[in-house]
Amino acid sequence: MPTVSLVTLGVADLERSTAFYAALGWQRSPVSVEGTVAFMQGSTIVLSLYGRDDLAADAGVAMPVTGHAAPISLAVNVSSEADVDAALATAASAGGRVVRSAYPTEWGGYIGYVADPDGHLWEFAHNPGFGLLDDGRVVLPDGEAG
Amino acid sequence: MPTVSLVTLGVADLERSTAFYAALGWQRSPVSVEGTVAFMQGSTIVLSLYGRDDLAADAGVAMPVTGHAAPISLAVNVSSEADVDAALATAASAGGRVVRSAYPTEWGGYIGYVADPDGHLWEFAHNPGFGLLDDGRVVLPDGEAG
Repeated sequence: MPTVSLVTLGVADLERSTAFYAALGWQRSPVSVEGTVAFMQGSTIVLSLYGRDDLAADAGVAMPVTGHAAPISLAVNVSSEADVDAALATAASAGGRVVRSAYPTEWGGYIGYVADPDGHLWEFAHNPGFGLLDDGRVVLPDGEAG
Repeated sequence: MPTVSLVTLGVADLERSTAFYAALGWQRSPVSVEGTVAFMQGSTIVLSLYGRDDLAADAGVAMPVTGHAAPISLAVNVSSEADVDAALATAASAGGRVVRSAYPTEWGGYIGYVADPDGHLWEFAHNPGFGLLDDGRVVLPDGEAG
């Protein structure tokens, strides 16, 4: 079964971003390289913070600052609406920008969006229709994770 | 331990993107909503394909087509250099654009980058310094997944 092993966020200020994600509970691993890359072990993926220019060079593409949100969102599913509210509050107090406060969706969920210091979008979601394991994995109704 | 539960890619053509990811081994779940969203169960995350405009509306932000790569990359770690080459070849034959062919990195790894039909960046990587579980999870040297 395919998956995503690691998500790399291109950032403008590594120290600022590391502090932001630390405030959200991610721990910087000692294998990180000072001033270059911060690796943070999650339960099911690794989050990597890396200079935007370094990422562009590695991938061989242009990544100018556009001032617009990229069409991608990383979601953290939680087990209740209260947990969505709490996660948004934590992210906001850590310096994230709540771009859309939590709201009930037409499909019965409850979600909100935060932009990190570089504008990367994070969704905090409660979806009562999806299974949710203790390690944060979502299990689709007919699916089987792991 | 924090994590990412689900990654949403905003796409221009849901059918095209669903076919692309299906060719890479992701299976569309029956809980998907025809013409609106495709959910694909991975071993450790769910991949969600969703209209770029719908994602922008949900998040309450602008997501214009910029013609530039977003400063984010989703990585699939594999267990050998040959697996990197094979993954890049599969993605290319599925309609992905190899933006940087696989190359040996200065840190001892071997990586390459593919852009999906909307330009979303995927990295295929072999990193001999990281642990890799059967389900695709990366375990940092001093880390503990799960």
